[in-house]
Amino acid sequence: MGKKIVIIGGVAAGPKAACRIKRLMADAEVTLVDQDNLISYGGCGIPYYVAGDVSDEKELRSTSFHMVRDEYFFENAKGVKTLTSTRALSIDRKAKTVLVESLATGVQTHLPYDTLMLATGSKPIDLPIPGTDAPNVFTVSDLHKAIAIKEMIAKGKVGKAVVIGGGAIGIEMAEAFTDLWGVETALIEYMDQVLPRIVDKPLARMMEKNLRDSNVEVFLGEGAEEILVKDGLAVGVRTGKRTLDADLVIIAAGIRPRGELAKEAGLQTSDRGAITVNERMQTSDPNIYAAGDCVEITHLVSGKKFVAPFGSMANREGRVAADNMAGIPSIFKGGVASFIVKAFDVAVGSVGLSYEMALAEGFDAGFSLSSPADRAHFYPGQAIIIIELVFDKKTRRVLGLQGAGPVNDGLSVRLDAAAVAISAGATIDDFGTIEMAYSPPFSPAIDPINAAAYIADNLCGNRMHQIEIDTFNEWLNAPKTNKDWVVIDVRHAVEATPFAEKFGDDLWISLPYDQVRARYTELPKDKKMIIFCNAGSRSFEVQVFLNSVDIKDTLVVPGGFNVIRRMGVDWLPV
Amino acid sequence: MGKKIVIIGGVAAGPKAACRIKRLMADAEVTLVDQDNLISYGGCGIPYYVAGDVSDEKELRSTSFHMVRDEYFFENAKGVKTLTSTRALSIDRKAKTVLVESLATGVQTHLPYDTLMLATGSKPIDLPIPGTDAPNVFTVSDLHKAIAIKEMIAKGKVGKAVVIGGGAIGIEMAEAFTDLWGVETALIEYMDQVLPRIVDKPLARMMEKNLRDSNVEVFLGEGAEEILVKDGLAVGVRTGKRTLDADLVIIAAGIRPRGELAKEAGLQTSDRGAITVNERMQTSDPNIYAAGDCVEITHLVSGKKFVAPFGSMANREGRVAADNMAGIPSIFKGGVASFIVKAFDVAVGSVGLSYEMALAEGFDAGFSLSSPADRAHFYPGQAIIIIELVFDKKTRRVLGLQGAGPVNDGLSVRLDAAAVAISAGATIDDFGTIEMAYSPPFSPAIDPINAAAYIADNLCGNRMHQIEIDTFNEWLNAPKTNKDWVVIDVRHAVEATPFAEKFGDDLWISLPYDQVRARYTELPKDKKMIIFCNAGSRSFEVQVFLNSVDIKDTLVVPGGFNVIRRMGVDWLPV
Repeated sequence: MGKKIVIIGGVAAGPKAACRIKRLMADAEVTLVDQDNLISYGGCGIPYYVAGDVSDEKELRSTSFHMVRDEYFFENAKGVKTLTSTRALSIDRKAKTVLVESLATGVQTHLPYDTLMLATGSKPIDLPIPGTDAPNVFTVSDLHKAIAIKEMIAKGKVGKAVVIGGGAIGIEMAEAFTDLWGVETALIEYMDQVLPRIVDKPLARMMEKNLRDSNVEVFLGEGAEEILVKDGLAVGVRTGKRTLDADLVIIAAGIRPRGELAKEAGLQTSDRGAITVNERMQTSDPNIYAAGDCVEITHLVSGKKFVAPFGSMANREGRVAADNMAGIPSIFKGGVASFIVKAFDVAVGSVGLSYEMALAEGFDAGFSLSSPADRAHFYPGQAIIIIELVFDKKTRRVLGLQGAGPVNDGLSVRLDAAAVAISAGATIDDFGTIEMAYSPPFSPAIDPINAAAYIADNLCGNRMHQIEIDTFNEWLNAPKTNKDWVVIDVRHAVEATPFAEKFGDDLWISLPYDQVRARYTELPKDKKMIIFCNAGSRSFEVQVFLNSVDIKDTLVVPGGFNVIRRMGVDWLPV
Repeated sequence: MGKKIVIIGGVAAGPKAACRIKRLMADAEVTLVDQDNLISYGGCGIPYYVAGDVSDEKELRSTSFHMVRDEYFFENAKGVKTLTSTRALSIDRKAKTVLVESLATGVQTHLPYDTLMLATGSKPIDLPIPGTDAPNVFTVSDLHKAIAIKEMIAKGKVGKAVVIGGGAIGIEMAEAFTDLWGVETALIEYMDQVLPRIVDKPLARMMEKNLRDSNVEVFLGEGAEEILVKDGLAVGVRTGKRTLDADLVIIAAGIRPRGELAKEAGLQTSDRGAITVNERMQTSDPNIYAAGDCVEITHLVSGKKFVAPFGSMANREGRVAADNMAGIPSIFKGGVASFIVKAFDVAVGSVGLSYEMALAEGFDAGFSLSSPADRAHFYPGQAIIIIELVFDKKTRRVLGLQGAGPVNDGLSVRLDAAAVAISAGATIDDFGTIEMAYSPPFSPAIDPINAAAYIADNLCGNRMHQIEIDTFNEWLNAPKTNKDWVVIDVRHAVEATPFAEKFGDDLWISLPYDQVRARYTELPKDKKMIIFCNAGSRSFEVQVFLNSVDIKDTLVVPGGFNVIRRMGVDWLPV
């Protein structure tokens, strides 16, 4: 008779572990329990199902060979006993049983286990405001909700939608509503940027501009204070500043790990309610494992614990848990919070810590911001991507990398290589020699990831001095009187001229890059100079040269006009 | 007065180092010397220039901001003295001078240096056969040749072309001729596969099929024995097996490092003629540095020295050399031979060692071959990619990763992440938890790089037993009598039926995946079973199950039909 394995939770980590265990121990009696009747689905695909990119919800719970992953599948193809619509009520760790209840019949049963695994996932954060229980207010937390949302839209019941929360799910849902259904959509975010605590403001601004350019209204720094309800249905959302009409409201305000079952059983959990596990995905009870959204893992940069609610992490963790449950020693070291989101024509992603997060964690952080081509600049179809590299100035360790680009894999390429390097504790110098496969259709000879490290090296070496984009914008928007700085625009004259005409050629001086060595004596001596170009690299080179001729009060606009244009500012010449 | 720096070679490593040095030491007198009049160009872009994707050769030697990198540019924008059409004849290491000769005037000059850098590049291998000096026989080694080739084609002088050499340049030139100019093109490769010593046969076969499907004739295992010349012009190429007509012949038989100048100056060079450098890119004379195609670097998997003739490597090496020349200690550890090539609709790439190379290097090598989706399988536009992971069975170290896919960045993503990991000595287990940024438009929840590691783990753990594709093909093509094996096709019956009809249902048995546990007793007991599906994963699962019920003589077709179909075989049902 084989070992009895009970797994609570049937979405990602649970099914992964169940199947792996059966492959490792064919005689194990594996039972998978889930309170839902739909299991083993790609929750991250819900926005694409709502949008219509994915036509049937079954596709989200099918294998790549088009077999639906239901009870029949797990029983017959995988040899896993599967109890759906069955809720786990409590764990008796002494008796090694789980009390479960059939939601259909109310019958309660004690399932005995030799080893138990908790893959209880996460639940959406409830907003403590009135109106959230109206039937047209949804979280994006399971397939049933997804089906209901899509049905409402498909039936033409939704002219206007409000999405509360500017994280990935909120952004993806806003895209789904706007792009494919023509629903007038507003997105509200309590913080002063979208993707808070994930990317820094320059990158967030690019996503915000992209959303607005694509007809999503975006309101930042506004909390939803009330969902207005009429005749039992939500009809709008009131913030501190305005009221927005809505036929449908999405609450995407984040998630909380589902750790209650574990906590009530006396297992160690965190203040946030996440289950504590070691590197083998083992809880404080050696016979109980846990994986997925319900656990905390180690952040490989900060060293602190965090919740990484991604189906990808759940699968990786689930496999490690399964190996250990089957007696194969296996280690999950932690994660670096790899993240990517697509909306309309823009992808934004990050790995490791943002600059703001790094400062908050006490690092002596710096950042390099650049706007290189994603492949050889002479190759047709090349595009600019934005890369921000975050580093520790003292140790030169790379703490994070984030970026934005078009919706191809040009951003992923750099994020994923960076994730491996950051996980291994790589420095700026290591990043300078990361070996990206080179051919003009795929990358430039100096890859963006290398170039970002070069800039970081120049910043650390005090060879490059930069102005923050926000400061530059403020300066330009301030009244013109008594400005103690000038912009030196080292682009081609034809590019600089409209700017010089707008701001006046005493404030915005055109001096093309290749003429600086010959003509630098023409520059004003008594002013701080802000050097400006398209990508920042010419500016840096000019800064270094000016420094060598004793013009030292200069600042470079990092990433140059490429960055500013994508962030969207109101001072551009038309 | 600043340090005198002389740099010989103006294509990639040389200009990179020259400019970096000027940024680090503004007062340095940097002189860049090149025998050509065209410098600082993207040589890897030549096929795209010939094809017409890049309309003007100037684009290959322009910056991203459209400034041509000529003598004027280097002098004025970079502060680098630039001597073009000037050949370096010899180095007097005692006097610390380089003797150079102006090709225009014949005037010879001794250039004094404090530090010298050699970036002399590589030259194409000359074939020791008659006819190579005809004017319509070209190597793809500099812009002048590229211009001449394109001119011939554009003038309609080329109906047929023969490309000798199935490496990256040969393949790219064949694409350029065929795809954009409609030239009837034949490709000859001496070895029995294209991309020899770079990828293993399954991947090479995919590129060969892709070339043939795109109207390039491909002849393998045939050396060019003579270039036939008539009236002073090449008119054909004779191999051991045939004669091919040609109005244009390209010789792309590989490169040799240009190390003569170094060798004659008594610097240490390898048997192949590459300049020996340490991790600081310093030659055996501490005052002389070298970088780019002319040097040998350390292969981070084999530990041996190799030449990595890529513009990307030259740039990375050039920067490290420049740092050290300017007194900033900087290290270049070596490389992992990252490689990617695109032709028509297929990309093929590799990093580290191929399986065959790993065996040749004495590793106890194994390989996992898989055919996953490059992004969530339910996401529109997803495509299959092929991944081969090469590992050492004893140490579980990953030795290499190679793959094929459509022409997006889905292959690069995995290659580049693998390059970072392999450079750091990662094991199969490390690869299992590489954190790829997950979102359905960019990757599946179980990324191909993780999945490849999972398979490798199952191979190492003796849980998976595979048949090599070549063996499987041979068996199928052999006469039917007395076969001691059967194919168990675990795909949907509708997929299996045409195969069962072709081979007979005693040889090709359809038993769908989800019915195996219920019906395995129907299988013949006395035969070896080859388990077949589309991607290999169902087959593996069935193998594990059959093993548990004491049916142990089974083999899985790795990567399944997805791999076989892309390689092209002659036994498929029509």
